[in-house]
Amino acid sequence: MGHGIKALVFDVFGTLVDWRGSIVREGEAWGRAHGISVDWAAFADAWRGAYHPSMDRVRRGDRPWTKLDDLHRETLDRLLAEFGLAGLDEAEKDHWNRVWHRLTPWPDTVPGLLALKPRFALATLSNGNVALLLNMAKHAGMPFDTILSAELCGHYKPDPEVYRMAYGLLGLEPHEVLMTAAHNSDLVAASQEGLRTAFFPRPSEYGPAQVKDKQADHRFDFVATDLVDLARQLGAI
Amino acid sequence: MGHGIKALVFDVFGTLVDWRGSIVREGEAWGRAHGISVDWAAFADAWRGAYHPSMDRVRRGDRPWTKLDDLHRETLDRLLAEFGLAGLDEAEKDHWNRVWHRLTPWPDTVPGLLALKPRFALATLSNGNVALLLNMAKHAGMPFDTILSAELCGHYKPDPEVYRMAYGLLGLEPHEVLMTAAHNSDLVAASQEGLRTAFFPRPSEYGPAQVKDKQADHRFDFVATDLVDLARQLGAI
Repeated sequence: MGHGIKALVFDVFGTLVDWRGSIVREGEAWGRAHGISVDWAAFADAWRGAYHPSMDRVRRGDRPWTKLDDLHRETLDRLLAEFGLAGLDEAEKDHWNRVWHRLTPWPDTVPGLLALKPRFALATLSNGNVALLLNMAKHAGMPFDTILSAELCGHYKPDPEVYRMAYGLLGLEPHEVLMTAAHNSDLVAASQEGLRTAFFPRPSEYGPAQVKDKQADHRFDFVATDLVDLARQLGAI
Repeated sequence: MGHGIKALVFDVFGTLVDWRGSIVREGEAWGRAHGISVDWAAFADAWRGAYHPSMDRVRRGDRPWTKLDDLHRETLDRLLAEFGLAGLDEAEKDHWNRVWHRLTPWPDTVPGLLALKPRFALATLSNGNVALLLNMAKHAGMPFDTILSAELCGHYKPDPEVYRMAYGLLGLEPHEVLMTAAHNSDLVAASQEGLRTAFFPRPSEYGPAQVKDKQADHRFDFVATDLVDLARQLGAI
């Protein structure tokens, strides 16, 4: 193909796994088992809604490095009260917080990764902490070669340190690494550090009312329909 | 089994891969192709002989963090002169330095890892840098879930920071992590940080004259004949 790409690094939440659908499905099953009725889509949206604000406090230096499991837990403790679920014991709260370790991949994710794996090094490049991503990868059967995480450099995306860490640890030049995401802003930040970029949309990541990231808003190196299509464009299928 | 172990972290050089045999075989093939005669066993032993002294200078703080690829290269440049190979060009030197990325696993390594993989998280815990270990894993077909490396904490084993990093990044308690090595000293250091320990010997790692690490010199949690035997003891086979 002559593209010179040696590694793909992946955004995970939304790009490879369906966080919203996973939380809604697990919530509905849990609610039925416990005879509790909750608007799980609203619960999932509120939880994810605190994602960027909570990381931004770390990024601005308003608080020291805090891993995503702990940010998720702080938000969860607030939401459990707001959604009338404050009576959970510690084991139940911890199990709920680890729902992020059990997210379901989109249908094309595992086939796409399996097709890419013989030709490229495959790594996460996510704001999730290492344990979260490793547990999720094993749960979902996502065959990464290694887990790269914001936790390894103490900076959250889109801070430039995260993208620099990726090609540094992989021992590659920036242009040999393809940042893959369903989010325009992640790819713009990666391209500013010299990484190559690949976009495909996840138009229902945020549910039926999604308006953002329905298409590529910039000139990326690759624009695909999903990960299997990207694997095809990269010559792996 | 009731052992409570959730992850295995592996020493790599010697424990999982045969660095000496790999370098000798590649050297002999290279020598034949170039009409050059070298004592490749002596070359491999001299290269590996500089391993601990070069890391110890980093561990003592005599020089800033330097990754193993760069320490290997410094030693290689000296050895090429000593062994009459100073005429290599930069691409050939770089290719030779990356022989450490192409080491061959012992016969039981890949079967053992494949047996363990469905039940445990599997990670390297090596002084090799991330790129070296990742390239080696792909080359050898070693199915790790992630690469943990001294490079990620800027300390070389047996510094305690390396073992603490492992259970911290894995999100586990120390006693849930099994350090696996063919070297007594690595396991003693790991046990001092609360990790569980597993030993099996690699009696020809250093060639026919090896005297060290031919058996477990301490009471480790598991003592096996090889990695497949350890997988059996852990209930994975």
